[in-house]
Amino acid sequence: MKLYDLELSGNCYKVRLFSALAGIEIDIVPVDFMAGEHKKSPVIDLNPWGELPVLQDDDVVLRDSQAILVYLARKYGGNQWWPDSAAHQGEIVQWLSVASNEIQNGPCAARLVDKFGMQLNKERTLEVSDRILPLLESHLTNNEWLALNRPTIAECAVFPYVATAWEGGVDLTPYKAINSWMSRIKELPGYKSMPGIE
Amino acid sequence: MKLYDLELSGNCYKVRLFSALAGIEIDIVPVDFMAGEHKKSPVIDLNPWGELPVLQDDDVVLRDSQAILVYLARKYGGNQWWPDSAAHQGEIVQWLSVASNEIQNGPCAARLVDKFGMQLNKERTLEVSDRILPLLESHLTNNEWLALNRPTIAECAVFPYVATAWEGGVDLTPYKAINSWMSRIKELPGYKSMPGIE
Repeated sequence: MKLYDLELSGNCYKVRLFSALAGIEIDIVPVDFMAGEHKKSPVIDLNPWGELPVLQDDDVVLRDSQAILVYLARKYGGNQWWPDSAAHQGEIVQWLSVASNEIQNGPCAARLVDKFGMQLNKERTLEVSDRILPLLESHLTNNEWLALNRPTIAECAVFPYVATAWEGGVDLTPYKAINSWMSRIKELPGYKSMPGIE
Repeated sequence: MKLYDLELSGNCYKVRLFSALAGIEIDIVPVDFMAGEHKKSPVIDLNPWGELPVLQDDDVVLRDSQAILVYLARKYGGNQWWPDSAAHQGEIVQWLSVASNEIQNGPCAARLVDKFGMQLNKERTLEVSDRILPLLESHLTNNEWLALNRPTIAECAVFPYVATAWEGGVDLTPYKAINSWMSRIKELPGYKSMPGIE
């Protein structure tokens, strides 16, 4: 099983983090993003959208980090990270959507501007961050984990771009519950970090 | 089972559409959005995020339309709309992420500006639309359905804000495959429309 990977991408890190926590072996294939390797064969043949990460597991090929998390957890992760029941799946998908939308367009996009010089509206990325982080803080004030009172793939989807938010100028100091939650994640057996996370 | 609903919301319509297609009975509870009922009891108690839709099924309460689709399909929809296997779930979640992010911030956001006067950057909504619609067109040129070669909850997540894109000034005329796909959806047994879709 191969993960076409960019080390500095939080979306790729979601998959690396989950595979580390769940003890799933994946061959990491580094893609030279600056050289545009993701727009060339073989990556573009696997994912015509030209985005990373891409997972290839025999004849299964998936783009989108949330989809890859669901696939890996369902296939190799047992019931712990992505359970079987409707209510539990629904509870987790709420956070996959937040990862896809608010976290992506808030702290992730702010980091893309500051760290990689992407031409996005920085003010808007901070507005989105300022809306989602207090909601996350409020949830984590009343809950140790995002869903099911235990670590799930929701953590792997949301944590990477929250933990690197400071690289986009988003200050997490006021968010005590978010900081405690990040500490709990860092203490999970098998936890792996990425550049930008202390 | 209750759906706290706004008729003109495509996110609420995702749930109404799926329940119609899958034959799931839900009591629709209209919420007076203009009067701010979603920010007051009982809706705000169920969803502190102050967003619609909200689903209440006994002790299960869910926000986020994608999460509600997964819940309903898993609990009441059989294997047809949201199958059991890892590869199939992964394939569908790719499109749930697209619905949460690109469709929400592209055609949906363009419609929020034009139809409801929301203060968003219209140009940016059109840029996002101009990126995602050709990718969708290309996929649907080679596939009748978004995933699994059959209708799934992916259709219910993506269709509503594509079909109402014209209300945000997004012209779908050039996209022949998207138009054919929309026609196929409208012919599905049980299909229900919403205002803004002809």
